[in-house]
Amino acid sequence: MSVVPLLSDAEASAEALAVFDDIRERRGSDYVNNFWRALAHDPDQLRDVWTQVQQVMAAGALDPLVKELIYIAVSTSHGCGYCVHSHTAAAKAKGLTPQMHNELLAVIALASRTNALATALGVPVDHRFDAGATD
Amino acid sequence: MSVVPLLSDAEASAEALAVFDDIRERRGSDYVNNFWRALAHDPDQLRDVWTQVQQVMAAGALDPLVKELIYIAVSTSHGCGYCVHSHTAAAKAKGLTPQMHNELLAVIALASRTNALATALGVPVDHRFDAGATD
Amino acid sequence: MSVVPLLSDAEASAEALAVFDDIRERRGSDYVNNFWRALAHDPDQLRDVWTQVQQVMAAGALDPLVKELIYIAVSTSHGCGYCVHSHTAAAKAKGLTPQMHNELLAVIALASRTNALATALGVPVDHRFDAGATD
Amino acid sequence: MSVVPLLSDAEASAEALAVFDDIRERRGSDYVNNFWRALAHDPDQLRDVWTQVQQVMAAGALDPLVKELIYIAVSTSHGCGYCVHSHTAAAKAKGLTPQMHNELLAVIALASRTNALATALGVPVDHRFDAGATD
Amino acid sequence: MSVVPLLSDAEASAEALAVFDDIRERRGSDYVNNFWRALAHDPDQLRDVWTQVQQVMAAGALDPLVKELIYIAVSTSHGCGYCVHSHTAAAKAKGLTPQMHNELLAVIALASRTNALATALGVPVDHRFDAGATD
Amino acid sequence: MSVVPLLSDAEASAEALAVFDDIRERRGSDYVNNFWRALAHDPDQLRDVWTQVQQVMAAGALDPLVKELIYIAVSTSHGCGYCVHSHTAAAKAKGLTPQMHNELLAVIALASRTNALATALGVPVDHRFDAGATD
Repeated sequence: MSVVPLLSDAEASAEALAVFDDIRERRGSDYVNNFWRALAHDPDQLRDVWTQVQQVMAAGALDPLVKELIYIAVSTSHGCGYCVHSHTAAAKAKGLTPQMHNELLAVIALASRTNALATALGVPVDHRFDAGATD
Repeated sequence: MSVVPLLSDAEASAEALAVFDDIRERRGSDYVNNFWRALAHDPDQLRDVWTQVQQVMAAGALDPLVKELIYIAVSTSHGCGYCVHSHTAAAKAKGLTPQMHNELLAVIALASRTNALATALGVPVDHRFDAGATD
Repeated sequence: MSVVPLLSDAEASAEALAVFDDIRERRGSDYVNNFWRALAHDPDQLRDVWTQVQQVMAAGALDPLVKELIYIAVSTSHGCGYCVHSHTAAAKAKGLTPQMHNELLAVIALASRTNALATALGVPVDHRFDAGATD
Repeated sequence: MSVVPLLSDAEASAEALAVFDDIRERRGSDYVNNFWRALAHDPDQLRDVWTQVQQVMAAGALDPLVKELIYIAVSTSHGCGYCVHSHTAAAKAKGLTPQMHNELLAVIALASRTNALATALGVPVDHRFDAGATD
Repeated sequence: MSVVPLLSDAEASAEALAVFDDIRERRGSDYVNNFWRALAHDPDQLRDVWTQVQQVMAAGALDPLVKELIYIAVSTSHGCGYCVHSHTAAAKAKGLTPQMHNELLAVIALASRTNALATALGVPVDHRFDAGATD
Repeated sequence: MSVVPLLSDAEASAEALAVFDDIRERRGSDYVNNFWRALAHDPDQLRDVWTQVQQVMAAGALDPLVKELIYIAVSTSHGCGYCVHSHTAAAKAKGLTPQMHNELLAVIALASRTNALATALGVPVDHRFDAGATD
């Protein structure tokens, strides 16, 4: 299923094709996954998202694999099946082991459990957690 | 605001108080935060959640700070304000720097953006991301 | 905080006031809670929601307290603090005991945990769960 | 689609297989559904989730069918298609009738509608709903 | 996949069939899409939803295409794949151009990004945004 | 409550202050709302978000008010109270009338209702809604 057709290289605009080529080059792979082929209907958005992915997911104070774990956590919580699949694959390519995957899922599952409890109990935020508190 | 009264030490059952004491001892702090005081109405759930938190959040293939980052990512995506506050505080206690916090938020924000795009475009999962594929 | 002013009886239109009066009469209480006072800016929506609440939450194949439990479960999962507060109060008025509340929260928390796991694992629906299957 | 391969009996570890056997015995069925076969990559999580499901979903102050209804409500709100399918099947096995199913969906739909209205209106929680209020 | 069988015209009750006929007549099309065929198990809900769709989505202070855009935005945020597909199709039938679709997605993506940031930062609502403020 | 302190002009970095000044100038107002003061801890993110807001929310194939309505719809569905408040205020500044607000809320509420029904029924996407279909 798809809301818009996935654009092949032949169907993509020159501007979109340039992004496809950059994806291929940086990844060292001929494959461009479906997300980018769907996004190619808006070359500006395609370029902007791809650029931001390169910047945000690069090594910094957090390493790239940790960033993929965070990405998977967000994608799971939003129920985005596509994103869970694609970023679990990306995490594996960056060194995710089965043991790390198990621990990632355990944290996501625990947080989902306690998030629900905190919301159902309407727990008020402790004064000491408020960064805006002046005392 | 609170859906149930937060139980003081004097109001908590002996079973709940034992968990409060364990929280204090393991954290080396007199303070028991509101989540546990609300959860204390169900001492079994209180004990079980606290035990699971100890096990799941301990060092393993992933380190405790990375686990807190994943926890914050899930809590943000679920819109649990209490959990965002309490686990950002926990992450700081485990070494979260302002630069790491900025990068964490940048990944959460980017994932939220692309999750929305993938869903709005109805992108089908690539065959190569399917672990159940037999070819 | 409020996005629109809460309308007092004096500020509400005649049409909205008629709904307020119906709420008071059916509940046997002088109090009209904030949700209805905010909704009163659109008397048609106010009337329609109030009517639907009366119909849907009435005794049927499921009893009214069970319906309130389902309501709380949905409200918790959507992170609607107001709704969690108001419907937990409604459930208490219909007989919710502390033990039932504990069990409700345990189910919500468990489902939140397994929902996250099923999504993070991308579990495909079993053929036998598909009501559209012809074999 | 699946993020991890579903483990057959032959592929599962001895520890996971023991849980599969327990599932079969308690359900009086040879069938082990996909969720457990995906979760089997982490035998500890598998055992823990299965044990918690047995405890939480058992008869108590709430009956098992009511608990399944709550489970479906949470799963629907989280957009977990797998969970909606599997727990609607479970509810049917516990006596869910078409009329009860209709009423369940009506409550879920109504709550989803009013949750959205309360959030879009930013309705403040009434003082009387606050269990922490001292007056 | 489907939780309930989709009812054909032959399987639908007389009451449900009357709604199907109304859908066909108002749309000037023989086709009744799957949502209505699933909903037909509860003819009252079917009738009520169809009636509400006619009323709410009609031209008013907002035009019908704008209403479809809002519908798609909500459906995307809830992760309802079915609804995204069906309402994007509806929007196209009402004049949605590729450029409008791109802009719609850009706003949804931006809002998803800033929603996450506001939640992760726990930003308090500015006093001036509070309609209930008296000064 | 706030996860990070809101930065005053005196506390903000020169880079962040330049964005504050741009916000003031383009809005013709001295007021910088809390979101930007919280985001100022990461001047790069602050600059990037503000720039994207200017670009995405500008008049195009969709007018600025319509874009605000879409923004409110997303923010409501994500349960972001801050965003609902700030963008309803922004929409009013761009011409939102009470009647338009009522209609916006009616569409959001209806979509929330039918999203829940489609998910709880597991409705399969109609073949004709699939843009990737080749027949």
